[in-house]
Amino acid sequence: MDTDEGRRVTITAIAREAGVSVPTVSRVLNGRSDVAPETRERVEELLRQHGYRRPGNRTVHRAGLLDLVFNDLDSPWAVEIIRGVEDVGHGAGVGTVVSAIHRQPASARQWLQNLRARATDGVIFVTSHLSPPLHAQLRRLNVPVVVVDPAGVPATDVPTVGATNWAGGLAATEHLLSLGHRRIGFVAGPPHLLCSRARLDGHRAALEAAGVTVDDRLVQPGDFYHASGFAAGTALLDLDDPPTAIFAASDQMAFGVYEAIRRRSLRVPDDVSVVGFDDLPEARWASPPLTTVRQPLVEMGRLAARTALRLAQGETIDSPRVELATELVVRDSSAPPPGS
Amino acid sequence: MDTDEGRRVTITAIAREAGVSVPTVSRVLNGRSDVAPETRERVEELLRQHGYRRPGNRTVHRAGLLDLVFNDLDSPWAVEIIRGVEDVGHGAGVGTVVSAIHRQPASARQWLQNLRARATDGVIFVTSHLSPPLHAQLRRLNVPVVVVDPAGVPATDVPTVGATNWAGGLAATEHLLSLGHRRIGFVAGPPHLLCSRARLDGHRAALEAAGVTVDDRLVQPGDFYHASGFAAGTALLDLDDPPTAIFAASDQMAFGVYEAIRRRSLRVPDDVSVVGFDDLPEARWASPPLTTVRQPLVEMGRLAARTALRLAQGETIDSPRVELATELVVRDSSAPPPGS
Repeated sequence: MDTDEGRRVTITAIAREAGVSVPTVSRVLNGRSDVAPETRERVEELLRQHGYRRPGNRTVHRAGLLDLVFNDLDSPWAVEIIRGVEDVGHGAGVGTVVSAIHRQPASARQWLQNLRARATDGVIFVTSHLSPPLHAQLRRLNVPVVVVDPAGVPATDVPTVGATNWAGGLAATEHLLSLGHRRIGFVAGPPHLLCSRARLDGHRAALEAAGVTVDDRLVQPGDFYHASGFAAGTALLDLDDPPTAIFAASDQMAFGVYEAIRRRSLRVPDDVSVVGFDDLPEARWASPPLTTVRQPLVEMGRLAARTALRLAQGETIDSPRVELATELVVRDSSAPPPGS
Repeated sequence: MDTDEGRRVTITAIAREAGVSVPTVSRVLNGRSDVAPETRERVEELLRQHGYRRPGNRTVHRAGLLDLVFNDLDSPWAVEIIRGVEDVGHGAGVGTVVSAIHRQPASARQWLQNLRARATDGVIFVTSHLSPPLHAQLRRLNVPVVVVDPAGVPATDVPTVGATNWAGGLAATEHLLSLGHRRIGFVAGPPHLLCSRARLDGHRAALEAAGVTVDDRLVQPGDFYHASGFAAGTALLDLDDPPTAIFAASDQMAFGVYEAIRRRSLRVPDDVSVVGFDDLPEARWASPPLTTVRQPLVEMGRLAARTALRLAQGETIDSPRVELATELVVRDSSAPPPGS
């Protein structure tokens, strides 16, 4: 009874406690902009404290919008996620509002302010790190939040959609081992991201399972971007005993490795095999087309949108953490080592 | 006085003529969904006929949203345009709603229906062809429309933002001529698009200005996508007297040409130079990095957003057709012909 009461706290009770009128609480709930900021803060905090949920059918309040927020839109997979979210939103009669907050608190504040002025049915955050202050503010707004591709450890009450990074790392290296490679270079992602760690651990697990000694000099740091792949590829080719294959933890870094190989007048895959991770559209257009681990980015966007819409309708999500399966896509950049 | 009167037709007059109440006309104007479809159609048609414009300050009615509509989100430059529009929208406190209508009338109808249910301040269409029925429906909604990268000939009352395609075609071919190339292949875009024609005409103008005979066998058809670039590149290399350089009218086709060259065990630029058109981010990541004609896609998105917001505030656009300058970006895929 007690929890039920908690859930069913009325707008009237909130208005009384906040010392405002019932219509004012309604305006806050509906995301209207004609409420003084301090009043809004106070009401949102009380709604949060009492775990207020909109009763029954929320469709009358629907904004018809889902917010999709990136740190940066120059991420090469941004458009893939947009496609997935837009696809589900379009079918549900919901518009997809795309924003970039450029990792800047001022930009995030501006975005929140815009959001308050027009309301939204849910927010999908595409990020390796949902900052605690931003997350707290979204909680106060009482808007459902879903995180795509979380590389950190988000608060446990946020549903997340990711991919099986460890299994992907394992599959890529098993593929290179099956071709006969024994010296396999690895270009890592940023070490503070869990997904980087999982890909490296999968790579190491494959080597150890095959009885291949892990040589730490064959693991080079990277940041997922092209330039770091070029630098790491160059460093690996500079070794006295260079690898015959290089597995880069992102497609962009794999393209950087391509360029390091070309600058030596070597060829992919004749002299060095290369495997990436992501399966961006560019992987098909690369020359040679890139063997890579496919993250189902469009499907991840679709699932995040479906989850956000279910939360907006007051449904409960049974499995709030989902990892969709990665898949090795073999193209022309991987072959047996030279002389084999 | 007459035109002024025309502009100032009142809601009351529209309501009287349509046989509905004044609040019903307001609901139509504000894009609310609680109006019967036939009533909406009738009111919108009358608003249109009378050239109704919202008086003075429209900010009270602002939806805080700009709609950005693509035929397909798999266009490689979609994300570049999104970045530009989002950047301006974000600063103006306006959300960017991204949609894809997949060239399907049913999908466009669904999008229009979603739009009516939530209102918008303006629509930016990214398309080579704004279909007349869709355009007519948007006119009836009385929402400002801007078209980015028009390749057809849009209705004269629609502001458009494009790029200087002819000058870009000229600059690319002048660059190859200056390196000493005389046999230059060209991979064209779809012939029904004006931008394809302009790029080809610029290419031919450069050849003629240099006194180089135009050989029609050196012009191959394409559709801007990768596979057509591969096919055209292969056909050009199959000629008895193959070109020493190939200019592709899109970056994606240039990547297809790369692959055609690699399959012959030839090298870019040692054996064949390649120049593209677009300057997608992928042009920098290609191996070798691609010399290409830069379309200022982000800036085109920004200008379209600024134009739509100005129209939403009732401003008049003095120069409704703008072409932003293209620019040749020289990277590593172009060099003097072999043996020179």
